[in-house]
Amino acid sequence: MEDIRIDCLQYANWSGLVFEQMREARIDAVHVTIAYHEGFRDTILNLEKWYQYFYDYSEFIFQGFSADDIRLAKQTGRTAIFFGFQNPSPIEDDIRLLEVWKRLGVSFMQLSYNNQSLLASGCYEKQDTGLTRMGLEVVQEMNRLGIAVDMSHSGEKSTLQTIEISDRPIAITHANPYWWHAAIRNKSDTVLRALSQTGGMLGFSLYPHHLYKGSLCSLRDFCGMICKTADMIGVDNIGIGSDLCQDQPDSVVEWMRVGRWTKKIDYGEGSASNAGFPKMPDFYKNNLDFPNLASGLKEYGMNNEEITKVLGGNWLRYFENSFSHKN
Amino acid sequence: MEDIRIDCLQYANWSGLVFEQMREARIDAVHVTIAYHEGFRDTILNLEKWYQYFYDYSEFIFQGFSADDIRLAKQTGRTAIFFGFQNPSPIEDDIRLLEVWKRLGVSFMQLSYNNQSLLASGCYEKQDTGLTRMGLEVVQEMNRLGIAVDMSHSGEKSTLQTIEISDRPIAITHANPYWWHAAIRNKSDTVLRALSQTGGMLGFSLYPHHLYKGSLCSLRDFCGMICKTADMIGVDNIGIGSDLCQDQPDSVVEWMRVGRWTKKIDYGEGSASNAGFPKMPDFYKNNLDFPNLASGLKEYGMNNEEITKVLGGNWLRYFENSFSHKN
Repeated sequence: MEDIRIDCLQYANWSGLVFEQMREARIDAVHVTIAYHEGFRDTILNLEKWYQYFYDYSEFIFQGFSADDIRLAKQTGRTAIFFGFQNPSPIEDDIRLLEVWKRLGVSFMQLSYNNQSLLASGCYEKQDTGLTRMGLEVVQEMNRLGIAVDMSHSGEKSTLQTIEISDRPIAITHANPYWWHAAIRNKSDTVLRALSQTGGMLGFSLYPHHLYKGSLCSLRDFCGMICKTADMIGVDNIGIGSDLCQDQPDSVVEWMRVGRWTKKIDYGEGSASNAGFPKMPDFYKNNLDFPNLASGLKEYGMNNEEITKVLGGNWLRYFENSFSHKN
Repeated sequence: MEDIRIDCLQYANWSGLVFEQMREARIDAVHVTIAYHEGFRDTILNLEKWYQYFYDYSEFIFQGFSADDIRLAKQTGRTAIFFGFQNPSPIEDDIRLLEVWKRLGVSFMQLSYNNQSLLASGCYEKQDTGLTRMGLEVVQEMNRLGIAVDMSHSGEKSTLQTIEISDRPIAITHANPYWWHAAIRNKSDTVLRALSQTGGMLGFSLYPHHLYKGSLCSLRDFCGMICKTADMIGVDNIGIGSDLCQDQPDSVVEWMRVGRWTKKIDYGEGSASNAGFPKMPDFYKNNLDFPNLASGLKEYGMNNEEITKVLGGNWLRYFENSFSHKN
């Protein structure tokens, strides 16, 4: 089995330091968020920033479009950066924009982010509509184009319905099991089973609000949860989606939560007394800590092949099967 | 020499009929205009229409990005469609949008269209500023990215300066020599010589306002002009850029001329008494007539190798050298 390391979700305050650390940790591919609430035109401006990063830091990173780019990254000692949206806002009300974004290299799109979208319900809505009329169309079009459907921030009903109707396995790039930590963003056994039974992928999150004991979660706690999840749904459909937001100021988490949809403060997973970015657990402060996960899993009894799967092999297979364009 | 047929400028009222005729004439590549006056966002909508054409007419056409796609087109009996802008309006005031458009497959961009642009002067302006500050930057960036500079509708001074400063040979995709027909859009001996001496390309236009005797121009007239131009600047830097506007209503030529820059009617190369699209010459009504050019050139004394160069070989070499991305 190829020893490839993949982190399937990050939204850092990008810098040479972050890219250098990705590389030092030998992470071969990272799925990065290029839009939270932005519409089409503003997301183009975010893309321009990425072109500048690729130019300025070409010794560390380049844009990835396919699984082969991950192998190229490993061979050339760099990290392949895959784009994704946390919200369908960059396609606005126009399904045809999906093909434009596919050509620009968008590999993942969430159908909703906490709130109701034009496509599906978010996990914070009281009512989950399931997929809307447009949502049903968009899933088909994403399947055709080879853009992976990500339901990390969507509601349970929307998620289960998408797992059922999508022709290609979907992903939950960054979340943990609800049985481990009862957060709205974490996923029920029903979702985890339906996901894995259809070949979908779960990326385990290191964002403290998704962790048992929050910022005090230990490597042993986290790796224990991974091993138990593997016992429950198998070792072939799990990976890492760290949700690392390295070096971001607190204004960014506020913007993630409120976007432009409310004039009030919404604390999301936080609270008035804990409004900012929560402190990362000691064992996972930045990309340099990625390799720690291997030793943690080993201590908990995983063998090398299983560890290789969890730290990248499974995502590699998923990338391999998800991004080809069907006509 | 490879027998490849290329038409380096068309703006038809696209339809299955037009694409079928391209293919029946065995035209392996066509450079099509996807923006005249549109800004960034409106050009994205034009791109969406092209994605629909590629989907609906996949037996005839597909999007071309490189010279290899032209060979693929020939092998698979289809036509590779290359995108271009007649005006830099789709990059607005943002040089970074060039990289976005390059990724979306834009292969040619004119620096100005008849009028002054943010980059250069058009051929109808009284004063030719030469390249503007932004124009100088944009030419460098186009050179880096591999987007060909097209000066078909630009002024003489802007054109000569661009030929001089561009690292990569530029193109005049659709125009004829001024000595043959004294139209503002046709090019002086000075421009033609500077163009060919730097490895640039001239595409001969079949738009009646660029032709000696206009709509009454004969195949013999046209091919005679080509042969004389070959005597003057050599046979390696000339090709076809038909400027075919098949099946377009007259409202389109009015829009080409006035865009949104004037509230009055501007007749451009036409006149009040001849305001619409001029009637195409009898020997060139649509793509099916492309092969006629070969017999016309043969009658005038060109040998087969020379004809192959003019009908596509030269453009193929130009495409080969123009679209690679330098970092």
